[in-house]
Amino acid sequence: MSKVTKKRNGKIGVPPGTLVHIGERKQEAVRISVIDYDEAGCREFEADTIEQCFVFREKPTVTWINVEGLHRVEVIQKLGDCYGLHPLVLEDILNTDQRPKLEDYKDYLFLVIKMLHTGKTPETLIEQVSLILGSNFVISFQEGMEGDVFDQIRERIRRGKGRIRNMGADYLVYSLIDAIVDNYFVVLEIMGERIEELEDELMTRPTTLTLREIHQLKREMIFLRKAVWPLREVINSPVRGESPLVSEGTRLYLRDVYDHTIQIIDAVETLRDMLSGMLDIYLSSMSNRMNEIMKFLTIIGTIFIPLTFIVGVYGMNFENMPELKWHWGYVAVWAVMAGIALFMLGYFRKKKWL
Amino acid sequence: MSKVTKKRNGKIGVPPGTLVHIGERKQEAVRISVIDYDEAGCREFEADTIEQCFVFREKPTVTWINVEGLHRVEVIQKLGDCYGLHPLVLEDILNTDQRPKLEDYKDYLFLVIKMLHTGKTPETLIEQVSLILGSNFVISFQEGMEGDVFDQIRERIRRGKGRIRNMGADYLVYSLIDAIVDNYFVVLEIMGERIEELEDELMTRPTTLTLREIHQLKREMIFLRKAVWPLREVINSPVRGESPLVSEGTRLYLRDVYDHTIQIIDAVETLRDMLSGMLDIYLSSMSNRMNEIMKFLTIIGTIFIPLTFIVGVYGMNFENMPELKWHWGYVAVWAVMAGIALFMLGYFRKKKWL
Amino acid sequence: MSKVTKKRNGKIGVPPGTLVHIGERKQEAVRISVIDYDEAGCREFEADTIEQCFVFREKPTVTWINVEGLHRVEVIQKLGDCYGLHPLVLEDILNTDQRPKLEDYKDYLFLVIKMLHTGKTPETLIEQVSLILGSNFVISFQEGMEGDVFDQIRERIRRGKGRIRNMGADYLVYSLIDAIVDNYFVVLEIMGERIEELEDELMTRPTTLTLREIHQLKREMIFLRKAVWPLREVINSPVRGESPLVSEGTRLYLRDVYDHTIQIIDAVETLRDMLSGMLDIYLSSMSNRMNEIMKFLTIIGTIFIPLTFIVGVYGMNFENMPELKWHWGYVAVWAVMAGIALFMLGYFRKKKWL
Amino acid sequence: MSKVTKKRNGKIGVPPGTLVHIGERKQEAVRISVIDYDEAGCREFEADTIEQCFVFREKPTVTWINVEGLHRVEVIQKLGDCYGLHPLVLEDILNTDQRPKLEDYKDYLFLVIKMLHTGKTPETLIEQVSLILGSNFVISFQEGMEGDVFDQIRERIRRGKGRIRNMGADYLVYSLIDAIVDNYFVVLEIMGERIEELEDELMTRPTTLTLREIHQLKREMIFLRKAVWPLREVINSPVRGESPLVSEGTRLYLRDVYDHTIQIIDAVETLRDMLSGMLDIYLSSMSNRMNEIMKFLTIIGTIFIPLTFIVGVYGMNFENMPELKWHWGYVAVWAVMAGIALFMLGYFRKKKWL
Amino acid sequence: MSKVTKKRNGKIGVPPGTLVHIGERKQEAVRISVIDYDEAGCREFEADTIEQCFVFREKPTVTWINVEGLHRVEVIQKLGDCYGLHPLVLEDILNTDQRPKLEDYKDYLFLVIKMLHTGKTPETLIEQVSLILGSNFVISFQEGMEGDVFDQIRERIRRGKGRIRNMGADYLVYSLIDAIVDNYFVVLEIMGERIEELEDELMTRPTTLTLREIHQLKREMIFLRKAVWPLREVINSPVRGESPLVSEGTRLYLRDVYDHTIQIIDAVETLRDMLSGMLDIYLSSMSNRMNEIMKFLTIIGTIFIPLTFIVGVYGMNFENMPELKWHWGYVAVWAVMAGIALFMLGYFRKKKWL
Repeated sequence: MSKVTKKRNGKIGVPPGTLVHIGERKQEAVRISVIDYDEAGCREFEADTIEQCFVFREKPTVTWINVEGLHRVEVIQKLGDCYGLHPLVLEDILNTDQRPKLEDYKDYLFLVIKMLHTGKTPETLIEQVSLILGSNFVISFQEGMEGDVFDQIRERIRRGKGRIRNMGADYLVYSLIDAIVDNYFVVLEIMGERIEELEDELMTRPTTLTLREIHQLKREMIFLRKAVWPLREVINSPVRGESPLVSEGTRLYLRDVYDHTIQIIDAVETLRDMLSGMLDIYLSSMSNRMNEIMKFLTIIGTIFIPLTFIVGVYGMNFENMPELKWHWGYVAVWAVMAGIALFMLGYFRKKKWL
Repeated sequence: MSKVTKKRNGKIGVPPGTLVHIGERKQEAVRISVIDYDEAGCREFEADTIEQCFVFREKPTVTWINVEGLHRVEVIQKLGDCYGLHPLVLEDILNTDQRPKLEDYKDYLFLVIKMLHTGKTPETLIEQVSLILGSNFVISFQEGMEGDVFDQIRERIRRGKGRIRNMGADYLVYSLIDAIVDNYFVVLEIMGERIEELEDELMTRPTTLTLREIHQLKREMIFLRKAVWPLREVINSPVRGESPLVSEGTRLYLRDVYDHTIQIIDAVETLRDMLSGMLDIYLSSMSNRMNEIMKFLTIIGTIFIPLTFIVGVYGMNFENMPELKWHWGYVAVWAVMAGIALFMLGYFRKKKWL
Repeated sequence: MSKVTKKRNGKIGVPPGTLVHIGERKQEAVRISVIDYDEAGCREFEADTIEQCFVFREKPTVTWINVEGLHRVEVIQKLGDCYGLHPLVLEDILNTDQRPKLEDYKDYLFLVIKMLHTGKTPETLIEQVSLILGSNFVISFQEGMEGDVFDQIRERIRRGKGRIRNMGADYLVYSLIDAIVDNYFVVLEIMGERIEELEDELMTRPTTLTLREIHQLKREMIFLRKAVWPLREVINSPVRGESPLVSEGTRLYLRDVYDHTIQIIDAVETLRDMLSGMLDIYLSSMSNRMNEIMKFLTIIGTIFIPLTFIVGVYGMNFENMPELKWHWGYVAVWAVMAGIALFMLGYFRKKKWL
Repeated sequence: MSKVTKKRNGKIGVPPGTLVHIGERKQEAVRISVIDYDEAGCREFEADTIEQCFVFREKPTVTWINVEGLHRVEVIQKLGDCYGLHPLVLEDILNTDQRPKLEDYKDYLFLVIKMLHTGKTPETLIEQVSLILGSNFVISFQEGMEGDVFDQIRERIRRGKGRIRNMGADYLVYSLIDAIVDNYFVVLEIMGERIEELEDELMTRPTTLTLREIHQLKREMIFLRKAVWPLREVINSPVRGESPLVSEGTRLYLRDVYDHTIQIIDAVETLRDMLSGMLDIYLSSMSNRMNEIMKFLTIIGTIFIPLTFIVGVYGMNFENMPELKWHWGYVAVWAVMAGIALFMLGYFRKKKWL
Repeated sequence: MSKVTKKRNGKIGVPPGTLVHIGERKQEAVRISVIDYDEAGCREFEADTIEQCFVFREKPTVTWINVEGLHRVEVIQKLGDCYGLHPLVLEDILNTDQRPKLEDYKDYLFLVIKMLHTGKTPETLIEQVSLILGSNFVISFQEGMEGDVFDQIRERIRRGKGRIRNMGADYLVYSLIDAIVDNYFVVLEIMGERIEELEDELMTRPTTLTLREIHQLKREMIFLRKAVWPLREVINSPVRGESPLVSEGTRLYLRDVYDHTIQIIDAVETLRDMLSGMLDIYLSSMSNRMNEIMKFLTIIGTIFIPLTFIVGVYGMNFENMPELKWHWGYVAVWAVMAGIALFMLGYFRKKKWL
């Protein structure tokens, strides 16, 4: 989650539309899973070669082709040729450093969305999902880092749960977006809890580590924000009904996702506000604590300074120092010093310095 | 008031329109109170089963069904079926983590508003109120945490006070919104008073507690803001006359509520500005006070340092130290030291350091 | 000028349109002054009862009714009935906690504006003025705190100075707004002078009082801003020519007032910027001064620390300390100490610490 | 350049359109210079009385009347009467506290622009220039503080350089605006240089004076910004072609000036950003330097504190202190003390404190 | 990259359209390279005199004239005359202090874009590229500082790689813009790496140099932002299809560049946010470190202060001090002092001050 821009080796200067994969390269094979369904039933299989997907092009049933792994460029190329995708679309699918966006190519819609993972590491992973919505097909592309949030949708299609099998490809795309956006809430909840723990820590026992974690969270929030803000625009466009590929019925559902997006943006902004507030609290609480220590130490020093002066006086070697010969002189000096110390303690207490 | 997002256990991944209550679960029974009225009269009762409300569906009189408690999902489901509410509306009613919003479903308007409570706890409670406005009915949903602000409206309907009985369901919805918004002023007044007390405290006797309370208020303000800002948009839409369900007459009244909302947003922003100013004042006043103490102590130390040096000089054991043998040597040293001390005090005073 | 919201006792929960005065209650009687004029002449009197104003309703002459004091609700009620004002307008007139606004009720325009007073107190007072502009009448409402800025307009009407007597009620309303806005310049000039005095003080002799006054001015600015910003929208609406009650000729004059409003907003923002800059300057100048003191004191301490160590050395009681027996030992020690002190002073000066 | 609002003595409360000069009053006479030209030739003279200008009213040639000095109100009045200017325009010409603006009075355009002077004083002077563009005349008004930036335009007209003599009054107004805007670059360059000098000073030898100058420049920037920002709107309006007084050909040239204005606004914002950055750098560099000094002094103090304790120990007068009688006792104490001092120095160095 | 505005010597006051080169003057000759191509083939040469380019004016093939070096004004003048460029366009080409912009002169489009160089110096260089797009020609102007990013486009034309030879002049302009924008990613990547190195440095070993480099990067970011932000508007205009010179097919490609621009703006803003965060981290980490040192030193001092007082007590010369005569007095004092020191150490440790 930490890089602002990804390496583009071998990308700069080549003609536009040249397919180069920008992202984390994986050695595993590309996984292509196909689900083809209509009201009557559903067929599911893993394709060994991309050519197996081509037969669904002309079928009236809804076909969902999910491609995991983007490093084998020729697979994407063939799929693009079969389904008539523009070279720039293919280029954008391979470049995983895209901003969330929606592009309308008349025959199909092209969407780029960021999927969040709360995997094994404490950091949140961001993976790019590209979606192609045609009249009777949906193609989704992922880098395939650690599973996805689509399993429950697959289950729903298999069992015919809800209205998913009765509706078109646009409803399937809605369901995919909905699953991705719902998962944002999970990530935000985890973050919210980390922030609240941090806040407790801040009140009771702030350390330099607390500061570092606040900084870390602030930075994650910058990246989260970049993933979430453009999403609003992406979803708003089909909600306004600008494409005939999205039916009136699905639009209502998308409006619901739109509301969720706004809620998530709100939550991100709130968490950001809370984090800024925490930084201020941390700094002032650290400086308060340090000041308290310094004050205490300085007060101790200040009480002893006149006493040390007095004992210095009677350490002088003048021949003619009458006090030195008094019988109670020594005791008297102790008494005077105790008096001075008590007076100073009282004075400091009165001034509320202790 | 402290969570940014609410727990969505059992919500992630289910098909859209599945009804799950997100919010604080209560064990009490659901309370359904019905008021049915027209110019001629008014009938009021508590419904034991939701089916009792169905008869009012077709009556020309205005019916207000108030549902308190959202945990029995089947009640909401039946009511939704009877009044033809969209599954997504029912889902949003149950999810109490909504942003204030207005949605136009042609046959009815669906509104979500946040109601503030200044209950027994010092913190302000925020409760979600969902309103359905049909042509001849209003349905309101609350979680039912600690009573509501609608009692005076009930009284007005019973006694036929004001114009409420002569007007339609849209005027009833206006009255409900008005009551909620009016209550915001009460909450703001209480907050304003807490802020002014804090400010006095800040000028006279700032403590670490003051800082914590400023922080606490700042945080409450974040949540208050989230409840109030979207309200403007919500109310503005019927004011602009975009729905035939709101009559021309009621629109004038809604414009009045709209003005109140702007005033409340203004007040919230002003309080936020004042709180930020207070944090600055607190920090600089704390650091000023600390600096004053340190300066005082350092000055005391500085006065004694040369004196201690002098008494150290005459504590040396050199055989040949003529001063030690002078008869007035000891007195002279005291005089010199007094002189130095007075000179330093004078110098510090002249420099305005004391 | 200090409250964010005003007390609404007895206002919450009553039906809309119920007339309750929100503001500072005064025991004096309500003062109603009437000026009725046309090109030919002008008649002026103080009305004892509100009914005396009713006869002017149908006259073609321009009538200006000025009501000072809002606590006698029945007076406002009767006036409203006679001139056909909407209950919500009367409610807003009585509620002196309004935001500046303009509402178009077809037969009349309703304006709320804030009038500034620089009275006997150092603080600026803000008073609400409500204006009703009909085709041949103007009604103005004030709480009547300490005189108003309208005297010169009365004089102009009496003497027929300028074009006021030749023009309609819309020009009178323009003149009232112009007088109020012109007075803002006076208030801003006074504030500007206080800020410049503060700035001088800041450069020469900053104290804690300076900080408090900066804070005070910042806060007044918050309230001033709230009074001025919405004014732009209020005046812009008739300038754009949206109401037939304002003639083309008067619109040019209103555009002039609109320019003044923009200038005032500019000046307020400039003063706010200057105040923020001053706070920074104050804080850094205070901390600089404190640091200078601490540095000076620490340097004095540091010079004496090695000297005190040396005199301590020769205060030791070892039997075998040859230096103690040297004839010039004592003088040599003084010489060494003077050397050390001079070296340190030189070192500190070279480093630019002194 | 330092006042936020100018004195309006004798202005508050008078009827609108009353002519009062607001600005620095000068005792010199009013200077009226007239240039009348067409393609064929050019005639230039200084008018002793304003009436001499009236003859050009009806001539087809382009006439430029430049009025320097605004304190003789009757001159402006007469000119206004002759050329049919609205009383509010005359009022605005005399009030030199205007915001840059453009007003379209159908027969003529009225423009207010701020002209910058980098005169003898280090501060930048801002002078108001009012321009009237009619179909065949241009009238410009200045207070006449220290010359103007129009000399090269006069020269161009006299010599027929460029296309100025072949084009209409609109091109002359464009040339005047262009000259004023070009001069902004000169002022910005001077400011940019001052800022860069300050930056060098900041890196090498920051003093309190540096802070004061940063503050001074920040303040000048506030006023500069107020002069420049509205200019964009002023010029944009004729560029969009909203007035028939500006020909298509001149519009292209105005678009060029518009670009310059945007560049100037950009530069002002950049300088502002740089100044804010400098304030932060200054504060942290000052506090770093102070901390370094304090750390150095405290380390010196800390090294001597245990040594002073040790010599104190052997200054005690106990009868039974065996070390005092050892032959090498004194030397051993020196050795121990040197060891402690070296150890501490090493420790501090290892910790990178020295 | 460091000047806010460039020197305009000899530019102020001259008539508009006068050609003066504003920028870094180079002594080298002007280099004019011409590439003329169509589907069939491509011809490339370096022109010795500008007149050699004129023959391509009327040819149907696409001609790309690249001019490096702007100091020989007459060359630009002649080229402008031949291709019918407006004097203001030529003026803007020569003034390298332009803001990125697009101007539509019907027969041709005029674009100004900033090209970034990451040359030999650590600082990023910004060079202005002006592009003229006609129906069958493209003219590009550069100052020619250190090579450009167009080599790969030349190569593609020569070899007929990609679709460049099959498409018109608009596609060539798109390719040039694309090359410039792609290069921004390289610069951002380098900056991102510098920032990440700085961040590591900040966590482990912050120095004053780190602060200076943060400041340096912040400043570069200001200039980078100025180059990038207006680019969005520039590219957006042909994307919206406002000029017939850009074909529908090329528009799709430009939309892709537009997306890249948004991504770059996003990245610049993210880097800015990260830099601000770093400044805060730096300041608090520096002040924490300093405080830790001061605390440690003060604690050492505080432990010795009472001990020094005690040894002072027994250095007094009173005749009657019984302790001095005790046999174990000296040892007892050591024991007492060790006890006090241990107690204080324990107390400080318990308080977590050590």
